Amino acid sequence: MQIMLYDTTLRDGTQREGMSLSCEDKLKIARILDDLGIHYIEGGWPGSNPKDAEFFRRVKSLGLTHARVAAFGATRHAGNRCEDDANVQALVAAETPVVTLVGKSSILHVEQVLETTREENLAMIADTVAYFKQRDKEVVYDAEHFFDGYKLDPDYTLATLAAAARAGANCLVLCDTNGGALPHEVAAITREVRTSFRAQGLPEPDLGIHTHNDGALAVANALAAVQEGVRQVQGTINGYGERCGNMDLIPVIANLQLKLGYACVSRAQLQKLSDVAHSVAAIANLNPDPHAAYVGRSAFAHKGGIHVAAIEKVESSYQHIDPTLVGNTKRVVVSELAGRGNIRVRAEELGLTLQGVEGNVVQRIKELEHRGFQFEAAEGSFEMLIRRSAVDYAPPFDLLDFTVIVEKRGNHQITSQATVKVRIGDQVMHTAAEGDGPVNALDGAIRKALLPHYPELAEVRLVDYKVRIIDEHRGTAATPRVLIESARGDERWSTIGASHNIIEASYQALWDSLELPLLRSRERQNRKSS
Amino acid sequence: MQIMLYDTTLRDGTQREGMSLSCEDKLKIARILDDLGIHYIEGGWPGSNPKDAEFFRRVKSLGLTHARVAAFGATRHAGNRCEDDANVQALVAAETPVVTLVGKSSILHVEQVLETTREENLAMIADTVAYFKQRDKEVVYDAEHFFDGYKLDPDYTLATLAAAARAGANCLVLCDTNGGALPHEVAAITREVRTSFRAQGLPEPDLGIHTHNDGALAVANALAAVQEGVRQVQGTINGYGERCGNMDLIPVIANLQLKLGYACVSRAQLQKLSDVAHSVAAIANLNPDPHAAYVGRSAFAHKGGIHVAAIEKVESSYQHIDPTLVGNTKRVVVSELAGRGNIRVRAEELGLTLQGVEGNVVQRIKELEHRGFQFEAAEGSFEMLIRRSAVDYAPPFDLLDFTVIVEKRGNHQITSQATVKVRIGDQVMHTAAEGDGPVNALDGAIRKALLPHYPELAEVRLVDYKVRIIDEHRGTAATPRVLIESARGDERWSTIGASHNIIEASYQALWDSLELPLLRSRERQNRKSS
Repeated sequence: MQIMLYDTTLRDGTQREGMSLSCEDKLKIARILDDLGIHYIEGGWPGSNPKDAEFFRRVKSLGLTHARVAAFGATRHAGNRCEDDANVQALVAAETPVVTLVGKSSILHVEQVLETTREENLAMIADTVAYFKQRDKEVVYDAEHFFDGYKLDPDYTLATLAAAARAGANCLVLCDTNGGALPHEVAAITREVRTSFRAQGLPEPDLGIHTHNDGALAVANALAAVQEGVRQVQGTINGYGERCGNMDLIPVIANLQLKLGYACVSRAQLQKLSDVAHSVAAIANLNPDPHAAYVGRSAFAHKGGIHVAAIEKVESSYQHIDPTLVGNTKRVVVSELAGRGNIRVRAEELGLTLQGVEGNVVQRIKELEHRGFQFEAAEGSFEMLIRRSAVDYAPPFDLLDFTVIVEKRGNHQITSQATVKVRIGDQVMHTAAEGDGPVNALDGAIRKALLPHYPELAEVRLVDYKVRIIDEHRGTAATPRVLIESARGDERWSTIGASHNIIEASYQALWDSLELPLLRSRERQNRKSS
Repeated sequence: MQIMLYDTTLRDGTQREGMSLSCEDKLKIARILDDLGIHYIEGGWPGSNPKDAEFFRRVKSLGLTHARVAAFGATRHAGNRCEDDANVQALVAAETPVVTLVGKSSILHVEQVLETTREENLAMIADTVAYFKQRDKEVVYDAEHFFDGYKLDPDYTLATLAAAARAGANCLVLCDTNGGALPHEVAAITREVRTSFRAQGLPEPDLGIHTHNDGALAVANALAAVQEGVRQVQGTINGYGERCGNMDLIPVIANLQLKLGYACVSRAQLQKLSDVAHSVAAIANLNPDPHAAYVGRSAFAHKGGIHVAAIEKVESSYQHIDPTLVGNTKRVVVSELAGRGNIRVRAEELGLTLQGVEGNVVQRIKELEHRGFQFEAAEGSFEMLIRRSAVDYAPPFDLLDFTVIVEKRGNHQITSQATVKVRIGDQVMHTAAEGDGPVNALDGAIRKALLPHYPELAEVRLVDYKVRIIDEHRGTAATPRVLIESARGDERWSTIGASHNIIEASYQALWDSLELPLLRSRERQNRKSS
């Protein structure tokens, strides 16, 4: 049985306190969701957030191969016509194949929050669904506060669903908006919905489920609904969302597919789960939860001696699944570092040979990771480390000294300047630059020194700059880790630096980011001339 | 119906990667658990951890008024007598009123991990339970891998329970040791246990449940078991534990008591839940999860304008319970979407009056949020903004100028130094400091200038420093946003800065972090003297 996955990280997920995504971030996440095999991507609420219009415009040319994009909005306002309703028209302007309409399904909200009548609310649902069906949209109806409304007034709540169904909605989503429902209630009420449709002589509806984690039950509530015949599950990556979060799609996908035999994504896509969880966290600049079910760094980590001894005898003795199924790995918490075998495999993947220096490379990685580097996020710096380990390595340049000065005088603008000394062959360049902040000034000064010798660097752009603090509790003496992403045409590489000093960490990442493209150009040149 | 709460934070909880508790910490937590009304406190595993002996010795004189203390250990080793078994004797030496014995209930573990026979394992269980019953202990039997074992060989798994029951165990705990069970399985297998006891003519057993969160279902699994008649629930505060954690007792207590009508603790004790979650996190030196169900700082936080407007009309419209029942509070998040009403509500919560300048404050917040500030994460800076908006505001100091210099010469250590000019009353202080990075140097220089005038700042500690990059695609010219958390005793405040220049952003956040405690001290002083 196929389950349809509906992701709302880009809309409901961003309601999480402290989370905000730029349009660029949202496009990156959309691509990741598409690769994972998500069926629907809810991109935003064009009526409430003018920034979302840009996303819907740009996502069209993103070339998604699998996912359908949905725009989210409310049913028309009371007394309005859809044609005159600004929110409805913002949904039209989004030009998505799917429109998701949230409507009031609880009498409390109809009468006390919306302050309209039962009849007008039913008309608002029916009109708005019909309006988009006439425009050939796939319409998803989100029945807000469905379970709470059902407990107050089951007949009215069911009538809102019937109104959406009769108007042609393709899927009716039962929402536990406040997140307080319990699994046995979700199961019983979902059964009631099916019974009531049969009793009214309506065709069997396609149902969806949308849960929140206020009772720490979002995942269980979604499973309970699926076991009662619901076919669409709505959630977010890592459970991001308002208050206690939305339902986390990651464990739901794994539980449904590995334990209950439903089809969600392909076997290969399932193996991306861990990567997806970590990449989305990185884009949102949030620390991934190491204890997250299935995909956390600690999810298959064994600490105690007895457990470790047992898993050496029988791999499954303290693991509920084989971690490789979701792209995670078993880990014994003692030594976490990569062995020689792993390093060789990764070097080969990059087309490099290690010339028998694996031991040195492993040693160097251990040292650097102890100081806060993390090479899994910085393949470019990993590549540089391997290249520099070659006995005949000839660096294209050498950074000797730098000085960075940041000054603020009274109410004047703050100024930042940097000077660098760079050796290129037998020449030493001494250059200076001002910049928009100290790292930008440093970047400018290094480029000034290198450009006369390496004009090809003009094409290299720095496209991403991230800072994460490790040891946060050490206050301003904590260790910043800097990640830089650079590009030249379609080519991309990530480099890293880590130091108590954020300027030094940036300098390390900048150095790698500029040296790597010079080496790659040199190789291409050599290949052409040979 | 009374549910017995069994806490294993001090034993299974400490298996969490990165968590360790001193004996002092454990005693503090035991006192908190007792106040909360927990019925059993599992203090440690004296056989595996010699440090635990000290806890069991000292806990006797702690004067717990309610909780019974349990020592945890395994059944005797194969071929041993209890009298000669070191682990069993360590349990005796702990001198606790309750002994919790873990035994193998899965045939896989009996044959392949323990490498003994079915019969010997049954004898190990029976002998060890009987041994402690003869010594007048309350005996809890933890049936390890119960659900996994049942799926492999139900008869043998049930036979292990019967062996413990016949030997006199007071409670039989069904453990989902690997954390992979699903709620419908837990419910069905729990029913089977009761049926099998009746079929064997054994008296109705007292059952317990012990779950882990590897499928993100630990809370749901515990509820499913209770709904099938289980009376003891085992878990940890905040769900601490190995891999993905143990079942979190906090939401289980709240769900059972507020939603399912079971009795767990008193109404007054229930109101301590939020404090308990935060205090235990503080003792364990872990950040509390702001999104934790019921007790997280964000659990009742409302961000969007529509939700905020709705809860002003009907308090329960976007809340699953009244947050005061669990000692939490509703909170409106200050953000760029917030209007004047929100600002007034927030100011009142802080005990400040706006003196008719709401309009200016809203305008200023909009300007700053446009430049990258985000006040929802920085209540301290929000408070400073309101305080500074008062017409008669007299700042305790004024930062005039600063210079930061970071230098690297060849292979020498990098150095960072800062100078600042600070006006305090009619004096101008000019100070300099070196530091572990530029921000640390700046912090040092500012404190040097202020300390002679404000010695109370010596108590103010910087406990957290975070950097987030906004507009990441702008490369090294992107905007860093700096968040600083500071503390004085139990008091905490967060401040923010945002600028293209990371040094300036840090400087803004530092400024607020030092000005705020001076104002608060001044007010306390005024209240005392008036």
